[in-house]
Amino acid sequence: MSESPATNRIDPSVLAARLADERAADIVEALNEEAPEVAAAILVSLPHEKAVEVLDQPELEQAADIVEMLPRDRVGAYLSGMSADRVTDLFREIEEPGRSDLRARLDAETRGTIDRLSAYGEETVGSLMTTEFVSVPATWTVAETLAHVRQVERTRETVYAIFVLDPRTQVLAKSVPLRRLISGEPMDSVLSVAPGMRPLSVSPNASREEAARLISKYDLLALPVVDSVGHVIGIVTVDDIIDAMVAKQTEDVQRFGGMAALDQPYMDIGFLTMIGKRAGWLCVLFLSEMLTASAMQGFQGELEKAIVLTLFIPLIMSSGGNSGSQATSLLIRALALEQVRLRDWWRVALRELPTGVTLGAILGLIAVARIVIWQKAGLYDYGPHWALVAATVGAALVGIVTFGSMAGSMLPFALKRLGFDPATASAPFVATLVDVSGLVIYFTVALLILRGTLL
Amino acid sequence: MSESPATNRIDPSVLAARLADERAADIVEALNEEAPEVAAAILVSLPHEKAVEVLDQPELEQAADIVEMLPRDRVGAYLSGMSADRVTDLFREIEEPGRSDLRARLDAETRGTIDRLSAYGEETVGSLMTTEFVSVPATWTVAETLAHVRQVERTRETVYAIFVLDPRTQVLAKSVPLRRLISGEPMDSVLSVAPGMRPLSVSPNASREEAARLISKYDLLALPVVDSVGHVIGIVTVDDIIDAMVAKQTEDVQRFGGMAALDQPYMDIGFLTMIGKRAGWLCVLFLSEMLTASAMQGFQGELEKAIVLTLFIPLIMSSGGNSGSQATSLLIRALALEQVRLRDWWRVALRELPTGVTLGAILGLIAVARIVIWQKAGLYDYGPHWALVAATVGAALVGIVTFGSMAGSMLPFALKRLGFDPATASAPFVATLVDVSGLVIYFTVALLILRGTLL
Repeated sequence: MSESPATNRIDPSVLAARLADERAADIVEALNEEAPEVAAAILVSLPHEKAVEVLDQPELEQAADIVEMLPRDRVGAYLSGMSADRVTDLFREIEEPGRSDLRARLDAETRGTIDRLSAYGEETVGSLMTTEFVSVPATWTVAETLAHVRQVERTRETVYAIFVLDPRTQVLAKSVPLRRLISGEPMDSVLSVAPGMRPLSVSPNASREEAARLISKYDLLALPVVDSVGHVIGIVTVDDIIDAMVAKQTEDVQRFGGMAALDQPYMDIGFLTMIGKRAGWLCVLFLSEMLTASAMQGFQGELEKAIVLTLFIPLIMSSGGNSGSQATSLLIRALALEQVRLRDWWRVALRELPTGVTLGAILGLIAVARIVIWQKAGLYDYGPHWALVAATVGAALVGIVTFGSMAGSMLPFALKRLGFDPATASAPFVATLVDVSGLVIYFTVALLILRGTLL
Repeated sequence: MSESPATNRIDPSVLAARLADERAADIVEALNEEAPEVAAAILVSLPHEKAVEVLDQPELEQAADIVEMLPRDRVGAYLSGMSADRVTDLFREIEEPGRSDLRARLDAETRGTIDRLSAYGEETVGSLMTTEFVSVPATWTVAETLAHVRQVERTRETVYAIFVLDPRTQVLAKSVPLRRLISGEPMDSVLSVAPGMRPLSVSPNASREEAARLISKYDLLALPVVDSVGHVIGIVTVDDIIDAMVAKQTEDVQRFGGMAALDQPYMDIGFLTMIGKRAGWLCVLFLSEMLTASAMQGFQGELEKAIVLTLFIPLIMSSGGNSGSQATSLLIRALALEQVRLRDWWRVALRELPTGVTLGAILGLIAVARIVIWQKAGLYDYGPHWALVAATVGAALVGIVTFGSMAGSMLPFALKRLGFDPATASAPFVATLVDVSGLVIYFTVALLILRGTLL
């Protein structure tokens, strides 16, 4: 056992006694402050049920390391008590040969479940579902069903949705909420308390977002996952969906900010990992932005003749970027909430075109006013052709903000059409695209307006 | 009644008959496609319970307009059947004199509840809670409690958490999950199935985020809201929290993209409203970015002497912006998830400083390589002092990326310290701040390296 300072500070069994009456989520917070070997020692000293509940929390960091440090003769009992989805997630994180060793310590049923769940891709409903649900045949009475629920309650993730199966085909027929079941007449069929509609369900190969959408839209506590013939193979609970929503939101914010998603809290990430997650994207964006230098080189003749034009380059570029990122964030969200569908792209384009022109005209007017005021008030001398310079900046802003709004609104559609998550990459890409095009638009407008005077 | 095309298309009662067997959330989707007067006509033709359920869905758009078009003699019954939190939200949206007229049609109890709930600020738990919960005195048995649950089930938002009150003081003593209650011995005290720990609760004046954090951390289906003496005055359910999370996320994405939050779906917003929501922020950012023009004017002498420096201005500015928005998005999220607290600002600064220097050095090396390769390969001539120009660009990138990472990571702390939501404004502000400072850093580095040669 390693001699970490935490181990010396306080005896794990004393800590365990102190923690035993706390809620699982609070114990997790305490364990997250400890080294894995200490956390494992504390877990072993907790009552078995409590330890299983703690291991079941997805918020437990370094759970894989902790499990590998649990005593070999007890680890099977812990893992068998946990919910199947959580054990499957854990197994994904444990490296060989530890994984095969642990797998061998599981009972055959748990092993089979984990093998099945592991087969689903990380972004699918299958990887989120668990197998501890309640189902009864449609021939049972309310009383029989309630007695069954009482009996299995402790070992089920949720008992608030009870799935009623066709007794012959085992196909899902109805979903009965527990609140309706307890109000039923004991001797009536369980079908007497079932709602009229066919139950909602989802395929294990659907995306996690699809399950989140259904649970959120229909205010469900649990959504059954059914295979192609209609057999219930698992459930997704509202807790899992909230956790998945929080994780997805974190990933989106980080991607939107232009970096690879971090899978650990900010303070726990090593320096080199942090550099790795951030440098990759920064370099890609930097290499794309190098096109701006190429564009500028192409206009060097104009730049030398009209230095005054360079003064407005940062202003014009940032306006294009801002209008583009507005439009992108708006459309990413509208697509995610299904307010807008792929086939609506032309309707969006028809809205963004006049919007962009109007916004560009507003900014253009402000820029013209600024140049006129500075010139007239003697704050700065934009040269003999200042009025034409003002017209150039104003007209370029109309063009660039329009282009930014159009590019920013269309890129999420393009990414989605190509099968990418629009949130993944849009904002930084729009900025780069608009920066380079903005320069070209600016100098083209300048050539049109200033040819024969400054240029 | 207006002659909208939808009214002429199909009789509302025929549509209602078609929709009556659908789920409430699906009826809402159908009604969202209709004008408010048609939607109201359809609602009136639905079975009363179904119509109430539909009105209870926060996803129903134009709900205030629809309610105002319901027949005056029936609107009181609809509103009294709805959950209190939803009616309160509706009343916020209805203008006078309609509101007073509707208020007069409610029964005294509903009216009192709405007056109480309306008093809470929009971002508080009080504005999210509802008053339809189940509570029983601690002197009751399991059987008595179950009988009560069966009796009130239809009129309660959730019966899956039952609040047990001290019989003398009415103070919340325990929270019993229904799944534990049904497993209890009928003649035992309800306390026999209560968990050992004190129940979690939240104040009506706490923020919605606090309720979301508790529900998500402890995997709750409902969280009791208690006043200062410990009386339960309402509950927040997991459904409300999911809706609030989705709404908050939309607002954050839109604010992050630099615009006022939209309260309607993209396609439903009028052109002028859309311009209003977007122009405000664009103008603020534009006016701030005008400082870049001022900064450039300050360096005009240097610009004239060394046109070659202008070529890299867009590249350098965007690198500062990208590193800043990385750091901002990272810290906004870490603060929101409470992975980092306000007092940790200096620990974050100590991490971001070496991170920024390293990232800047990586980008600087790429830039130097680019200049050397283009120069040596004869692709472009950066002039006789090209080596010094390369050194200037490389050194400036180290400074600017470091500054961007520091400014981007510290701004969320500053905003939070000042009482603002860090997600509200950080990203566009960081970009503007870093753009202006980036130019100053670039020209300062240029003066240090190029004085006596180009400058």
